Amino acid sequence: MSTRIEHDLIGDKEISNECYYGVQTARAAENFHITGITLAKFPTFITSLAKVKKAAALANFELGLLAENKKNVICEACDEIIGGQYHDQFVVDMFQGGAGTSTNMNANEVIANIGLEKMGHKKGDYKYLHPNNDVNLSQSTNDAYPTALRVALFEKLGELTVSMSIIKNSFAKKALEFKDIIKMGRTQLQDAVPMTLEQEFRTYSVMIGEDIQRVIEAQQLMREMNLGATAIGTGINAHPDYAKTVEGKLQEVTGRPFVTAGDLVEATQDTGAYVQISGVLKRVATKMSKICNDLRLLSSGPRTGFGEINLPAMQPGSSIMPGKVNPVMPEVVNQVCFQVIGTDVAVTMACEGGQLQLNVFEPVIAFNLFNSVNMMKNAFEALAYTCVDGITANKEHCKNLVLNSIGLVTALNPFIGYENSTSVAKEALETGGSVYDIVLARGLLAKAELDDIIKPENMIKPRTYDKK
Amino acid sequence: MSTRIEHDLIGDKEISNECYYGVQTARAAENFHITGITLAKFPTFITSLAKVKKAAALANFELGLLAENKKNVICEACDEIIGGQYHDQFVVDMFQGGAGTSTNMNANEVIANIGLEKMGHKKGDYKYLHPNNDVNLSQSTNDAYPTALRVALFEKLGELTVSMSIIKNSFAKKALEFKDIIKMGRTQLQDAVPMTLEQEFRTYSVMIGEDIQRVIEAQQLMREMNLGATAIGTGINAHPDYAKTVEGKLQEVTGRPFVTAGDLVEATQDTGAYVQISGVLKRVATKMSKICNDLRLLSSGPRTGFGEINLPAMQPGSSIMPGKVNPVMPEVVNQVCFQVIGTDVAVTMACEGGQLQLNVFEPVIAFNLFNSVNMMKNAFEALAYTCVDGITANKEHCKNLVLNSIGLVTALNPFIGYENSTSVAKEALETGGSVYDIVLARGLLAKAELDDIIKPENMIKPRTYDKK
Amino acid sequence: MSTRIEHDLIGDKEISNECYYGVQTARAAENFHITGITLAKFPTFITSLAKVKKAAALANFELGLLAENKKNVICEACDEIIGGQYHDQFVVDMFQGGAGTSTNMNANEVIANIGLEKMGHKKGDYKYLHPNNDVNLSQSTNDAYPTALRVALFEKLGELTVSMSIIKNSFAKKALEFKDIIKMGRTQLQDAVPMTLEQEFRTYSVMIGEDIQRVIEAQQLMREMNLGATAIGTGINAHPDYAKTVEGKLQEVTGRPFVTAGDLVEATQDTGAYVQISGVLKRVATKMSKICNDLRLLSSGPRTGFGEINLPAMQPGSSIMPGKVNPVMPEVVNQVCFQVIGTDVAVTMACEGGQLQLNVFEPVIAFNLFNSVNMMKNAFEALAYTCVDGITANKEHCKNLVLNSIGLVTALNPFIGYENSTSVAKEALETGGSVYDIVLARGLLAKAELDDIIKPENMIKPRTYDKK
Amino acid sequence: MSTRIEHDLIGDKEISNECYYGVQTARAAENFHITGITLAKFPTFITSLAKVKKAAALANFELGLLAENKKNVICEACDEIIGGQYHDQFVVDMFQGGAGTSTNMNANEVIANIGLEKMGHKKGDYKYLHPNNDVNLSQSTNDAYPTALRVALFEKLGELTVSMSIIKNSFAKKALEFKDIIKMGRTQLQDAVPMTLEQEFRTYSVMIGEDIQRVIEAQQLMREMNLGATAIGTGINAHPDYAKTVEGKLQEVTGRPFVTAGDLVEATQDTGAYVQISGVLKRVATKMSKICNDLRLLSSGPRTGFGEINLPAMQPGSSIMPGKVNPVMPEVVNQVCFQVIGTDVAVTMACEGGQLQLNVFEPVIAFNLFNSVNMMKNAFEALAYTCVDGITANKEHCKNLVLNSIGLVTALNPFIGYENSTSVAKEALETGGSVYDIVLARGLLAKAELDDIIKPENMIKPRTYDKK
Repeated sequence: MSTRIEHDLIGDKEISNECYYGVQTARAAENFHITGITLAKFPTFITSLAKVKKAAALANFELGLLAENKKNVICEACDEIIGGQYHDQFVVDMFQGGAGTSTNMNANEVIANIGLEKMGHKKGDYKYLHPNNDVNLSQSTNDAYPTALRVALFEKLGELTVSMSIIKNSFAKKALEFKDIIKMGRTQLQDAVPMTLEQEFRTYSVMIGEDIQRVIEAQQLMREMNLGATAIGTGINAHPDYAKTVEGKLQEVTGRPFVTAGDLVEATQDTGAYVQISGVLKRVATKMSKICNDLRLLSSGPRTGFGEINLPAMQPGSSIMPGKVNPVMPEVVNQVCFQVIGTDVAVTMACEGGQLQLNVFEPVIAFNLFNSVNMMKNAFEALAYTCVDGITANKEHCKNLVLNSIGLVTALNPFIGYENSTSVAKEALETGGSVYDIVLARGLLAKAELDDIIKPENMIKPRTYDKK
Repeated sequence: MSTRIEHDLIGDKEISNECYYGVQTARAAENFHITGITLAKFPTFITSLAKVKKAAALANFELGLLAENKKNVICEACDEIIGGQYHDQFVVDMFQGGAGTSTNMNANEVIANIGLEKMGHKKGDYKYLHPNNDVNLSQSTNDAYPTALRVALFEKLGELTVSMSIIKNSFAKKALEFKDIIKMGRTQLQDAVPMTLEQEFRTYSVMIGEDIQRVIEAQQLMREMNLGATAIGTGINAHPDYAKTVEGKLQEVTGRPFVTAGDLVEATQDTGAYVQISGVLKRVATKMSKICNDLRLLSSGPRTGFGEINLPAMQPGSSIMPGKVNPVMPEVVNQVCFQVIGTDVAVTMACEGGQLQLNVFEPVIAFNLFNSVNMMKNAFEALAYTCVDGITANKEHCKNLVLNSIGLVTALNPFIGYENSTSVAKEALETGGSVYDIVLARGLLAKAELDDIIKPENMIKPRTYDKK
Repeated sequence: MSTRIEHDLIGDKEISNECYYGVQTARAAENFHITGITLAKFPTFITSLAKVKKAAALANFELGLLAENKKNVICEACDEIIGGQYHDQFVVDMFQGGAGTSTNMNANEVIANIGLEKMGHKKGDYKYLHPNNDVNLSQSTNDAYPTALRVALFEKLGELTVSMSIIKNSFAKKALEFKDIIKMGRTQLQDAVPMTLEQEFRTYSVMIGEDIQRVIEAQQLMREMNLGATAIGTGINAHPDYAKTVEGKLQEVTGRPFVTAGDLVEATQDTGAYVQISGVLKRVATKMSKICNDLRLLSSGPRTGFGEINLPAMQPGSSIMPGKVNPVMPEVVNQVCFQVIGTDVAVTMACEGGQLQLNVFEPVIAFNLFNSVNMMKNAFEALAYTCVDGITANKEHCKNLVLNSIGLVTALNPFIGYENSTSVAKEALETGGSVYDIVLARGLLAKAELDDIIKPENMIKPRTYDKK
Repeated sequence: MSTRIEHDLIGDKEISNECYYGVQTARAAENFHITGITLAKFPTFITSLAKVKKAAALANFELGLLAENKKNVICEACDEIIGGQYHDQFVVDMFQGGAGTSTNMNANEVIANIGLEKMGHKKGDYKYLHPNNDVNLSQSTNDAYPTALRVALFEKLGELTVSMSIIKNSFAKKALEFKDIIKMGRTQLQDAVPMTLEQEFRTYSVMIGEDIQRVIEAQQLMREMNLGATAIGTGINAHPDYAKTVEGKLQEVTGRPFVTAGDLVEATQDTGAYVQISGVLKRVATKMSKICNDLRLLSSGPRTGFGEINLPAMQPGSSIMPGKVNPVMPEVVNQVCFQVIGTDVAVTMACEGGQLQLNVFEPVIAFNLFNSVNMMKNAFEALAYTCVDGITANKEHCKNLVLNSIGLVTALNPFIGYENSTSVAKEALETGGSVYDIVLARGLLAKAELDDIIKPENMIKPRTYDKK
């Protein structure tokens, strides 16, 4: 295998000629053996880096800082990366010191070497196209890396809202299907008052709908980027028109309305938007976990639990217990939610740990936000397609629980009075009898009247009645 | 001391006649000895409960459900509580089971007994004015408690933005004062490139300004409330026009634009808005902690640290070390921030733990949100008035650090070339000499030219220069 | 009201003559208005401070560094504080900057002024007995404060194990009471195989027993203290024999086996033991929360839930729903557990934030550990006395659920074979019939044989059987 | 590609004949597309599963429950997996519902099919060797999965202590190297009193040594396992002697002292030991993060920071700033620590979420504990070899900071008195002069005397002196 020698501040290093990355990437790949998970697992981040590099090249060319032939090959290289090629050349561990310098240099080196080959030169002949002087021109890791992160997160959060809409719609459809099913509502796991299974499932749909709004708001925070900041936000060594020019180019390359932050010194060190996003993902996880807890409760049984609904059987539940089926899809979603909630603490600590003009811990922030979004996307779609869509209801059982419930007395309250209600409730609890039977036996209401009161359409919404 | 006998589902109980609260409050006060911290520590929550009760009474009267004389004494009682009276009658521990029922009943009983005295009756004569039938009419704990919580949080978050504006302005004023002070920027705690102390302090001001926006957005989520939901959101036993009527009354009583949630079943069980607020408070804490870390770093010394700024001395720093002064105000703010970040996890778990039609853990959510807002208000104002406003800069030291810094070479790069820059940097690092001296000694630049390049106004922003 | 003038590094300050605390305490009380919660809420911390001061005075006297009359009045003052007096003089907020200097000076000043009065002098006449020179002699905040914290936590963790034993015993007694009650075990909320309610409740007892062991292990970590370290652990300005001497005096004063750390520089900056304790408290909270979740599940109903056990009614559950009783005690314990888990994150961040020779964030660590222990003590005893001790079982219902359960087939597996088991399970699920009836109807087993197999004593433990 | 048809409770499924796994694994692999990370990333978990299966086969054979030829091929298959073969057949995502059933069945199916081939049968001919009836005999997922987890964690925690010893030793060696280097100690980032760099580095060594002890204690908790529990701990369908027999076999197969839990019902649902381990890993992370923060502080500069030590340059620090070198290794370790701390919250929530007789969330617990241990192992060894071992000290600079420091006066206190000390400190602060010069200029001490007092060996430990 042929090799080439590259060198940097640290000294010389032999690089395989098969590699498009160069000496700095190679050092970083050696230094950081932490998770074994490289950028290649997050293709949107790679393509976003390429978009940033392309936008910079276009701006530099427009300002007369970069020769046309260099601009052309840089843009071609970026387009190929955006098209999905060379992702295996992004070999640095996602966990890295140096605030993303290694990732930025990985992109610079790969693009330079692709470009060099296009120019008819050999990889490593950086005098014709230089990773730093040309590909990284007018940039610093401290503006290129976070901008690529924001471009990528903007996309991923958009994808997440799609997955959320899928599970939202599954609940909404199911709600319609469960329109006529009356059941007991429960507060504090104690029998409360009647409702419909439609109301229960529509609630989940409405909840997720609100969360989609919150994700969209958080996504908008990603639009603000800091290209032009260079090292610390003062724009040192950048052309005065660069920030404005590259803003337009980035919009053009991405087709998204990214804007330059109002204060670049602040924007370069601030990670508030990531904490916000992580907090919103935590919110989504918190509520989806609650929903999955409910699904597991409502389908508990088949004989000794609530048994109101049935989740579709996805796989045998036990090697030792014949016929057992488990709520495996809600269970895996719960775990995803715990992970998202837990890693929010990691993101928070990383943001808190930033010092002075830079937050050096952006790599762990990126790692966790990408993982959280990816896991939730996978989990929510799986929950929709392999669980919620196939849920069936035990309509008769639901109705019997209502008729058998003591909580029914609340609905009778305005008609037979609080004293009678309490007396009926006590007898029912002590004798095990049903409120329905006791009311009829005592002659407190006629059967027709009672049936009317406890009709679903009457018990599940406000109504007028004569004053007691 | 005279007493009266009250009774409830559990049985009879002797209550001191000095107490405006009744049997259910007394039981709760006995059941819940947890934190020793009662509602009385959070007066805004008490006044908000009174506002909700007043709005309900006005709505019930308008709908013909409550007699005028009852409405009148309930409203008077509420007004007195809003005015600051009777807060010592709110004796239940903030940590309580029952989803806030005890707090709701505490309010119902106190208002009823104040009203009874106004009507000329004795405390406890509930046949004339009943805590449940009259004060709690058309309500349930499950709508009254969370609505009061939202009314209170709306106020408290508004107060927080005022405190945040105070500390924001302190940083902004200080930035103006530090306009001409050039200093080294640092990334990864390593010398980077020059900037001004103005830019450093303005950054903090801008950061906090963004966070104020996020708090305001989160505050708006509190406007949505669920009065009219009663037990589980179906509005059982409420008049069909009650929800709409009480919405208007609540707006009137509070002077705030509260609105009824679109889906009351969802609104009654959902705690997403609290997770969101808690996440935003965490964001604020994360960034304020970072700012305090910076203040402590920049003022480290006086001799063996960065020593760029001096924090005002608030108290002697050590009993054993003469003359030692410590950054006590940033230190206490850091701790407040850790607490806010930590209790966000408690809030999150409480929200995740909600089941089916109700989240029974709202008391711990309320406790933590109120505490976080109160602590941050206190801490931010103290930081502004007793620390930031009195910060002074060591201008000469800041300038000398720049002149002595090797990072200066970055600014020279476009003028003497990358090769010369690297060579100068190496010599400076090895010999301990200054870049300034070495450049002059080598005759690379004339003194006037060099002085021009490293003028603050030239080094701290983008500039044009001839291509290398 | 008469006053005196005291002064310190910052200048003069007027102090009411009623106050035993002095100028430094007064400044700190003004600087730190954060939580409104002072040391007075944690009396064990105050008495522990007094024990440390007494031990130091005894050691200083023995080494000839402190005059006998001064030693005597310091010890008398400390004894009075240990006896419960003067706690109202500890007025500084628990949240404070300065690594506890204000708390240490609060103790020094109060002890000095009590001593001065005993000597016949006026408060503030520090030339006769000095807060720093005499009471704080051979000490620094950096050894006195953490040692007091450890002395206090040693006591409090001991108290916690007592409360844990109380709730452990309640579960153990209840297990014996529930010896003969057979019920269905559940995995993943799905019907699994039979067990006894005794086994279920004994599990909780065993769990808590393990946790008591973990708390005791963590408590032992508190025995290691750093008196003699002075400012940073080098023991500067302390007598070479002081560390050894004060170790013995502290053992004597406290009656507990405290020992001097092996490396005082390490011990002065290290907060690992607090993270460990907080992690163990989190463990305890995690499992107690799980237990409470189970209690709420098992008592869900009364009609539409699991309904296997009944929790004692502590208070009416609802203003709108007659007869509703809620599991308020488990609910409040859950919330305590969430709080303990959340504040563990605050403790962790505080420990992580320590820098170089000192961790300045010990006050927030102390605040949270004391609060967590206190809340858990209160909550666990309340849970034992007002909930677990009064639990009753619905024996018939439990048994019927077993007989009606499909999970019963697992026990029949070795007798009728896997094929028959599966076939029976399927028919039961489809027809709603019981496994018991189907097996008899098919003649797979005689009634006596079947009754024997599903006897509690046979189904709830391993057994031999002929190979299929 | 040839295929075979397998079937289970859900129905028939086509499986490639290249696969050693069967229908249940295939279903799980389809159901759980969550992280894309399979068991294959955690080889110790796979080999531990094989050890558990081997121990069970040996026990079943000894009890006459399993034929000798079946036992033999199962053991051979397990040995090959333990030897590193077939790991690519473990294809299920680490995030899975079903409490690990899919992972357990993955092992059962792979072992059965390897065994079938050894017996001369085709894969899938389960009548000759059955995944459930033979490989899983006397087991349930609920005892086999957690036992394998404990066997694996026991190994991994042992490996972690080795990596911790490596970094501990690096600090210890460095401490010896830095024996004669006097420097200023700092509390609250303010100049305190002198110490040696040896003391500073030995502290890190001692800290890590304590943490190794805590990890070893936590590791011991893994020894307790629940083989014999079967479904819920009652041991249903297991032979009365199985638990005792398999305990011995597991000890034999693993060479580790695993023991059967005292109460198998408790052991089957309890996850306290995982919370404990996670809490201890958090402790380790908290302190290592603090150490890395210190390393970054002490090496801050080269010109505008503390500059007391130099970290070895591992890679160029900036594309825009010539000669910049960053503390990349501590930075990446910090991020690992944040991740460990954050995922502790996920583990805690997973443990809290267990219900009744089983905790279904063990997969996310396993995922996080394995990841945390692996990341820390990688990070700590990298920190030792590529950072700590190469640290150099700036001895003269350290000494000059001491001589120039005002904190020096604390050491002079006993010799020139508190009044003189304060006066000298004030003059030094105001004039910028050095304490050393001022003391000499004032003639307070002779040069020889002063030099003696501030000798390292005199300032860094307790000393006797005549009373003032």
